Amino acid sequence: MSRFRDRIAAVRQAMDEGQIDAAFLPPTGDMEYVTGIRRQTPNPTESHMFGDPVYGVLITPTRTVAIVPYMASKFMARQVEGKDWIDDLVYLPDGVDVPEEAVDLFRRFGLEKARLAVPKHAMAMTLVELQARFPAMRFANTDPIIAPMRAIKHPDDLALMQRAAEITDQAYLATLKLLKVGMSETEVAHEVEWQMKQHGAEGLSFITGIYCRSPRTAAGVEDKVNRSGDVVLHHGASLAFDIGVIHEGYCSDFGRTVYVGEPEARMREIHRIVMQAQAEAIKAMVGGKITAAGADRVARDYITEHGYGEAFFHRLGHGIGLDVHERPYLSHLDQTVLQNGMTLTVEPIVWLQDYCLIRTEDVVCVTESGGRSLNRVPTFDITVIE
Amino acid sequence: MSRFRDRIAAVRQAMDEGQIDAAFLPPTGDMEYVTGIRRQTPNPTESHMFGDPVYGVLITPTRTVAIVPYMASKFMARQVEGKDWIDDLVYLPDGVDVPEEAVDLFRRFGLEKARLAVPKHAMAMTLVELQARFPAMRFANTDPIIAPMRAIKHPDDLALMQRAAEITDQAYLATLKLLKVGMSETEVAHEVEWQMKQHGAEGLSFITGIYCRSPRTAAGVEDKVNRSGDVVLHHGASLAFDIGVIHEGYCSDFGRTVYVGEPEARMREIHRIVMQAQAEAIKAMVGGKITAAGADRVARDYITEHGYGEAFFHRLGHGIGLDVHERPYLSHLDQTVLQNGMTLTVEPIVWLQDYCLIRTEDVVCVTESGGRSLNRVPTFDITVIE
Repeated sequence: MSRFRDRIAAVRQAMDEGQIDAAFLPPTGDMEYVTGIRRQTPNPTESHMFGDPVYGVLITPTRTVAIVPYMASKFMARQVEGKDWIDDLVYLPDGVDVPEEAVDLFRRFGLEKARLAVPKHAMAMTLVELQARFPAMRFANTDPIIAPMRAIKHPDDLALMQRAAEITDQAYLATLKLLKVGMSETEVAHEVEWQMKQHGAEGLSFITGIYCRSPRTAAGVEDKVNRSGDVVLHHGASLAFDIGVIHEGYCSDFGRTVYVGEPEARMREIHRIVMQAQAEAIKAMVGGKITAAGADRVARDYITEHGYGEAFFHRLGHGIGLDVHERPYLSHLDQTVLQNGMTLTVEPIVWLQDYCLIRTEDVVCVTESGGRSLNRVPTFDITVIE
Repeated sequence: MSRFRDRIAAVRQAMDEGQIDAAFLPPTGDMEYVTGIRRQTPNPTESHMFGDPVYGVLITPTRTVAIVPYMASKFMARQVEGKDWIDDLVYLPDGVDVPEEAVDLFRRFGLEKARLAVPKHAMAMTLVELQARFPAMRFANTDPIIAPMRAIKHPDDLALMQRAAEITDQAYLATLKLLKVGMSETEVAHEVEWQMKQHGAEGLSFITGIYCRSPRTAAGVEDKVNRSGDVVLHHGASLAFDIGVIHEGYCSDFGRTVYVGEPEARMREIHRIVMQAQAEAIKAMVGGKITAAGADRVARDYITEHGYGEAFFHRLGHGIGLDVHERPYLSHLDQTVLQNGMTLTVEPIVWLQDYCLIRTEDVVCVTESGGRSLNRVPTFDITVIE
């Protein structure tokens, strides 16, 4: 577990080089990555805990201190057990939004005029409350410091991501056996989520997307609050999956497309194009030899040359690890050079609004001989549901 | 739908009184409340969309403008249809984290030195990016402006909350019929979540909590990332539910406790104490006559007088509406006077770590004759699972 000690040291060095005085990491992927302390599963709507604007780990050049709201104290005490790279825990009283015990800590470390780095998804409230007390405090993002470290996976972390991918593969294959014409997208989502849990998932890494599309699907079914809906599996439709689990903190993100009844020739052709675009991009993902934008370009060029460039409407993929979306992004403006040990999704799509939605998605590890998929489910095979 | 027009006007007035120059509402309960635009279900781990730090609705004294990232454009275009209180939509290009189109908007409205209000759960990144471009900009929280409006429910919103409560009641009762000794907490969670969806839930308002506890349960099972686990239903245990749905944006939050096999006399007595504490607090929730802290006190005194004060370890409840936790909080330091039309959970608990976890929870509307529960499932009855 000494990799966390190494990471705290690396964060301190990057802070020093980036003129950052301290980092405050609330329960986020950054906190998990740097300290090994897990976050609890967040709620889908906003929740409140007294002290939550100052809940997290404060890293100064010399100290690493966990600030713990009353309602999180049991959880955090257990999490910090055996982690002697956490120097101290400061427990907060209940009933107060920003207890003085937490504010004093910033004062004690002389951070009144600090440049403080916080993760992108920290609460705005944290900055508002700190600014109100310390008007000279300035804020920065942890991404320039921590995102490059998170992008290249430690072998221990890669093993967890491999297992997350296996759970997802197995759950997907088990689900295919249970699909029938007449089930709704929501029922399919329910089934695959249960299969993921039964195969060992700790939770979902993102909201399950199930898309059943054909010339008979009404327009506008995608403009919804959710990512699966009332469309029922019907003959002539493509059925696309976008699913992922959390395994010991690490995420999977997986996609395939099957067909309800034998697909017509054009769908088969699009299927082949999407799968080949993915294969070409994966092959090109050699560490040090291609940028994120370059990988996107490989898949996009292939799909464009085959006439469906407009229908590939989003980036090719994104980094993945403790969060489902991490830097870098396989997008046309991201000039990050891919490095061995980076893990990214490769997920081309052809979405023709009145015809089909065909996608595939693997988590791919960049190596010296090209990308290596963590998933084992074949891509080119046409699977037919009856 | 003109209640949204009224709310925007009320926000402007409160901004004026509070020396706030503009409010920026990213996809949050605040945005839903003020504009009627829904947010998409968030992912359980962090996700990324180009432009997301500036995704939201900007309200100035004269204009209401939606700022829309490329990947959210279809969703937002559909959401804004027919809402003529949104003056304009600014669409952002893909591939850029903070597109100039968004920054220009702040400049065009003369907000370079503004005091800008943002919701508690806005991204810290939003403030970091704005501060980097507009060093004189100052930030405030929307809570003093919007939270008091959200606390008192419009009759139309109350009707949605009533329906959310009914879905939850029905799903709970349907689940009880399916429970058997040997099921795990996770299986119970899975079943009740499916029942909620089948009864019409759009989604979950929070992570389902299922707690099976007895003298035979190992210590520490609650210090987990999730809120249900491997504990199987076994004779002699209490089995507590903490479940909730979203219905057209509005949340429910519901709890009851049943028993696996006939409970012993002490559990029955604790059950009665918890239910009576809840009944006493609900009765006392007369608009204008009691504070949030006062309601907490009523339930706490009852449980303390009966010997279990230490085991009632959290606040009595919280406001609820578009988010599962809203102001005010039924907590010892919250001196908010309860008003007719406020909706709050009332959720006393007795948790004896080596014996049982007994809780109940209703969503209660404050009225002139005391609290009125939106839930219909009886509380005092002892339900036994075999």
